[in-house]
Amino acid sequence: MEDFEAIEDFMMNGHKVYLPHMSIECVVFGYENRHLKVLLVKLRNVGWGVPSGYILKEEGLTQAAKRILNERTSLDNIFLKQFHVFGDSKYRISKRDDEIWDRLPENNWLADRTLAVGFYAIIDCSAANIKQDILIEDYKWVEVNEIPDNLLLDHNEIIAEALNTMRKQIFNEPIGYNLLPEKFTLPEIQILYETVLNKTFDRRNFSNKLIAMEIIVKLNEKRNIGQHRSPFLYSFHETNYLNALNEGVVQAL
Amino acid sequence: MEDFEAIEDFMMNGHKVYLPHMSIECVVFGYENRHLKVLLVKLRNVGWGVPSGYILKEEGLTQAAKRILNERTSLDNIFLKQFHVFGDSKYRISKRDDEIWDRLPENNWLADRTLAVGFYAIIDCSAANIKQDILIEDYKWVEVNEIPDNLLLDHNEIIAEALNTMRKQIFNEPIGYNLLPEKFTLPEIQILYETVLNKTFDRRNFSNKLIAMEIIVKLNEKRNIGQHRSPFLYSFHETNYLNALNEGVVQAL
Repeated sequence: MEDFEAIEDFMMNGHKVYLPHMSIECVVFGYENRHLKVLLVKLRNVGWGVPSGYILKEEGLTQAAKRILNERTSLDNIFLKQFHVFGDSKYRISKRDDEIWDRLPENNWLADRTLAVGFYAIIDCSAANIKQDILIEDYKWVEVNEIPDNLLLDHNEIIAEALNTMRKQIFNEPIGYNLLPEKFTLPEIQILYETVLNKTFDRRNFSNKLIAMEIIVKLNEKRNIGQHRSPFLYSFHETNYLNALNEGVVQAL
Repeated sequence: MEDFEAIEDFMMNGHKVYLPHMSIECVVFGYENRHLKVLLVKLRNVGWGVPSGYILKEEGLTQAAKRILNERTSLDNIFLKQFHVFGDSKYRISKRDDEIWDRLPENNWLADRTLAVGFYAIIDCSAANIKQDILIEDYKWVEVNEIPDNLLLDHNEIIAEALNTMRKQIFNEPIGYNLLPEKFTLPEIQILYETVLNKTFDRRNFSNKLIAMEIIVKLNEKRNIGQHRSPFLYSFHETNYLNALNEGVVQAL
């Protein structure tokens, strides 16, 4: 009952607190050994999509994205990267006039034209502890190639664009850092990149390139994973890795 | 006089036509042999910045960016790439309260909190034909390392971010295509990349990399630029170039 009143209040009075016409949509990718997933949440009485919300009237955009993701899912300290503003599709140009919004009072601010700023993050989903808030009645991690095609509004397009951007930026953003342990084997980093990019690399070429670019360094340390099997461990070369990120691809020339 | 009335009308009634709280800012880079410049415009009675404007109530975001750049400068058919939303600085969180906006009537929509969507383009500025509209009283092309530090609002930050993004994306976006003739020499493409990236490349390594990645192909054709000097011509390998753009850096591994 308290929940119901809180939702009612958000619907009727949200425009006094939030900036209208612009939402934030958070695409959270989850990596776990050989699997790349995305976090979907079920908006109470509405349907499945990505966690989203509105910017407070005097709140920074980045801060808003963090707060919204935290409120919807309890995820905290997540590096969210802004990637695109959605303002071209029918959902983002006109007022919402589909069935879902019919239930809103006339001229309600939630049905107004709303552009969406997309943010993405990629986290280790085996360690993620999700708790829904009152707006959300359920959540699930779905493999990126098994996403249902009937998500809310343009959320399918938003996820596709996030995936596309993340794959292009994987060498420009500190993505590896938070998905691998401090010391890792060559197969571990190769499987991470292969899973995220959905392609296979030649084993020798892949590691040679990373080593030649001096992005990873071989440690004088091995991991025992079985009799006669003790591959060398590697770690990121912090300075070179951060330089490579700042310089972007240019590094490769 | 007519101009004055049009500006007055925009100030007083713009909010009836445009979406409030969100502007579009266009950073136009101009490349000309060994020079990288940016287009600055002088907003009538206000100051220097980049061409900007507001989105019409039922207009797509991309379409709005094209229209705004065209209205301010007459530039047409420009590939504008959305790169960032500015919503974290004091100019983008609070109402505008500096001197410039003191002249506006109280609660005027132009002084309201306004987030900005940045777009950038890079064009051959030797061919650009700029014409100002009524909001603009002057324009100039300024070398990117000679930009005055007192541009309007956060326009210095917006240009810096555009430059940073463009330099990271130069290998992921069709930037070379519109800045080089169809057939070019190796020094021409190297000078383009060196100028845009503000760094020098080893001559042999640079061309070997581009050729090895099969992004450019050597033509069976030379250009005569003097006695005993007739370098081979090259052109982009269209399929590989577009693939490289789609795949991003991954190509390099």
